[in-house]
Amino acid sequence: MDREIKLRAIGIIHTPYKNPKGMPIQGKFDKQAKGRIEVFPEYRDGLKDIGGFSHLILLYYFDRVAEERLIGRPFLENEPHGIFSIRSPMRPNRIGISVVKLEAVEGNTIIFSEVDILDKTPLLDIKPYISHFDIREDVRNGWLDRHFRDGRIPERTRLR
Amino acid sequence: MDREIKLRAIGIIHTPYKNPKGMPIQGKFDKQAKGRIEVFPEYRDGLKDIGGFSHLILLYYFDRVAEERLIGRPFLENEPHGIFSIRSPMRPNRIGISVVKLEAVEGNTIIFSEVDILDKTPLLDIKPYISHFDIREDVRNGWLDRHFRDGRIPERTRLR
Repeated sequence: MDREIKLRAIGIIHTPYKNPKGMPIQGKFDKQAKGRIEVFPEYRDGLKDIGGFSHLILLYYFDRVAEERLIGRPFLENEPHGIFSIRSPMRPNRIGISVVKLEAVEGNTIIFSEVDILDKTPLLDIKPYISHFDIREDVRNGWLDRHFRDGRIPERTRLR
Repeated sequence: MDREIKLRAIGIIHTPYKNPKGMPIQGKFDKQAKGRIEVFPEYRDGLKDIGGFSHLILLYYFDRVAEERLIGRPFLENEPHGIFSIRSPMRPNRIGISVVKLEAVEGNTIIFSEVDILDKTPLLDIKPYISHFDIREDVRNGWLDRHFRDGRIPERTRLR
């Protein structure tokens, strides 16, 4: 099997976060900040009908991460974990995924909230978030569950 | 900005589906079928701790899709929609995403259920599905909502 796969940016994600400091670890933890997706004009027709969705799944490329690791430390705690059990950007292929809240679509521009993405990040794909497909019940969250016990929100929800 | 991004397969996803016919449109619609992920040995260490999660998010490459479109027809209905408002594989960059149920981890092999992926699909990434990050409430599902009205399951949940 040919292991190499070539992709290309289909747009750019603009956000208030020029660097990771102060960025929420997941968009859910900051409802205020707004981001803007500039979809390159040649992909604009693909945006038809996305206005009907409240949430989108963004796939993007962690372009400022230089190193890929197999073991990493998540932001919620100091313990090392396998890279496939954490959401660290320092991962093989460096693809990021975020569920964001759609605010508006204007031409080839999408305004969204619940932002956890660095400014000027290359966009790879947009998928509609579909509750009937993407929500699972009876979820076990491995090492994370103890950070959310009894419905509490962990202390470290922003990058330092 | 350099638009080209080079990735590589980090494993292979083995499933009972040699072709799309009969495959569920989303894994949730078939709890029986099992799949097996063969993570290439050089990435094995990254699997540490994933056994604690009930569900995984798989990112993979639709390697047998030849065409990319901006308008497509989803399997649930005959209406055309923008590619970013449907989950069709014929999309720019052809990245697929599936939430699957983790059954077992044995060395560099992962057994999972809730399969909606073709046999021998190249794997790009594995992320833990985390209810605190990935579940949204008050979701509007655009053109799909009418197919799921009053809690019903649509007729077309398998590819034909």
